[in-house]
Amino acid sequence: MSLLVTGSIGIDTVEAPWGTVSGALGGSSVYFSFAASFFCPVRLVGVVGDDCPADFLQPLLEHPAIDTAGLEVRAGSKTFRWHGRYHQDVNRRQTVKVELNVLAEHPPAIPESFRDSEFVFLANTHPGLQMDLLRQLPRARLVVADTMDLWIENEPEALAELLGVIDGLVLNDSEARQLTGLSNVIAAGREIVEKVQARRQGRPGRRGFLVIKKGEHGSVLFADGEVCALPGYPLAKVVDPTGAGDSFAGAMMGRLAASGDLSAAGLRRAMAFGTVTASFAIEDFSLNRLRSISRERIDQRLAEFEEMLRI
Amino acid sequence: MSLLVTGSIGIDTVEAPWGTVSGALGGSSVYFSFAASFFCPVRLVGVVGDDCPADFLQPLLEHPAIDTAGLEVRAGSKTFRWHGRYHQDVNRRQTVKVELNVLAEHPPAIPESFRDSEFVFLANTHPGLQMDLLRQLPRARLVVADTMDLWIENEPEALAELLGVIDGLVLNDSEARQLTGLSNVIAAGREIVEKVQARRQGRPGRRGFLVIKKGEHGSVLFADGEVCALPGYPLAKVVDPTGAGDSFAGAMMGRLAASGDLSAAGLRRAMAFGTVTASFAIEDFSLNRLRSISRERIDQRLAEFEEMLRI
Repeated sequence: MSLLVTGSIGIDTVEAPWGTVSGALGGSSVYFSFAASFFCPVRLVGVVGDDCPADFLQPLLEHPAIDTAGLEVRAGSKTFRWHGRYHQDVNRRQTVKVELNVLAEHPPAIPESFRDSEFVFLANTHPGLQMDLLRQLPRARLVVADTMDLWIENEPEALAELLGVIDGLVLNDSEARQLTGLSNVIAAGREIVEKVQARRQGRPGRRGFLVIKKGEHGSVLFADGEVCALPGYPLAKVVDPTGAGDSFAGAMMGRLAASGDLSAAGLRRAMAFGTVTASFAIEDFSLNRLRSISRERIDQRLAEFEEMLRI
Repeated sequence: MSLLVTGSIGIDTVEAPWGTVSGALGGSSVYFSFAASFFCPVRLVGVVGDDCPADFLQPLLEHPAIDTAGLEVRAGSKTFRWHGRYHQDVNRRQTVKVELNVLAEHPPAIPESFRDSEFVFLANTHPGLQMDLLRQLPRARLVVADTMDLWIENEPEALAELLGVIDGLVLNDSEARQLTGLSNVIAAGREIVEKVQARRQGRPGRRGFLVIKKGEHGSVLFADGEVCALPGYPLAKVVDPTGAGDSFAGAMMGRLAASGDLSAAGLRRAMAFGTVTASFAIEDFSLNRLRSISRERIDQRLAEFEEMLRI
């Protein structure tokens, strides 16, 4: 089934004690699209300025499973830029510089050919903008959104409105705590999922669910009154955690769109695919690792993950 | 098979925003024994002073599966006391006061009737003392030890000697990082397990293994070159995390002694039993919850945990 993502496309600089990349392709919708493309075709909606180097977008444009009809190159604007620094402990990230540029302007239009999309992922942006984008997708049957601390803090009403119309939400553990004021992640998740379940009247689809991402510690799914915690895939070396959460969401949504299985067990399996796909993404800088692997490698690691969890 | 534990017995005071207990039965060997007793009989070696209230030790003395022949009440000495405080976020623990008392004296003797013990757990104490205790157990075939930051920092040589003679080690993630200087827990675990594998010459048993405990985030097993990460059992309410690690170790060792299955799969299942047993321990203050449940409740939660991990 058709899967659409809207989110950022960025020019990233990433520094770590073991290496640095600059001018690298990044952004939430890009990591999402590459991860999802292992499972089904992806429709990308995003915007860059006309300052991108000639071959910068090439990996997106030439990808056979990523439809870039919704990729706008806006004349006179500048591309979103992000500069981050990791330390020896990669769980410590420092944002050196952010230039929103074109992301602070009006959002890209959703092309006519994308309007029948059924599976939709609204990567993190202003919740009002997420609502605007969603209104252009009347056929959406599974809408999942991401958000961040900034909107939880500054736009609680717009965010509450969004929570009432989506089917699923993806958050970090710190965001789940912030949203509820509860320190226990399981209690926080239960409270949030009740809000998510107050979804738009009359809209087909499944009842609300929530995934809380805990980085190296894995993720927790709240669906149908049940809680499922999965560990992270154990890696002895993490090169660049940038985009891990978006890769996780991409593989999860890709799997859901491909299988159409929205049961609690189907969501759990999709979350497992998200876990192992994200574990590849962080093994190298930028999209290098995701671009070098095949679906077979993902299935192989999923089988290892499955075996590891056989208690 | 016979399981022996040596460790502390304490008079605990625990404060939390939702309640306080004082003068409660605690200590590493006590939590361990109650948790292990669901799986097999346990032999307890520990020492208290003669200041214990009359009925204080009753739950230990009357327990049909805990053999207290190694429990010494030392005249003229005072019992170990620990006073801790938890905050709204129970992962933040503050030690208000520690009185080592009898723990700072010579250790209890291992009674003749316990000398044939085959499964041995050396709860955290000075590594030199752990070595002394182990020398009194010539029939030990699976020896697992716990340790703490204090000994890693101050007694590295005694600890290295201990690591060379034991079969398994249980650590917190912060201790694993401290022991290796590595921030990645998986890399740290791999390095430690190589040391543990340098076990005593000619001693029967299995090759060294390591379990790293990550609190609410679960645990990681390193055995036979493989890494297995399990999540914590998801709980929306934690009342008192005191003794969680010892309960985990108790159930794990109890299961290993009962099943005799020391394969990597056997260790994994034992770790799963440790996880669910510890999840009960933290649902109430002191030993209240462990004392109120049956083996059937543990098996039931293990089945739920198993189902949750079926991806």
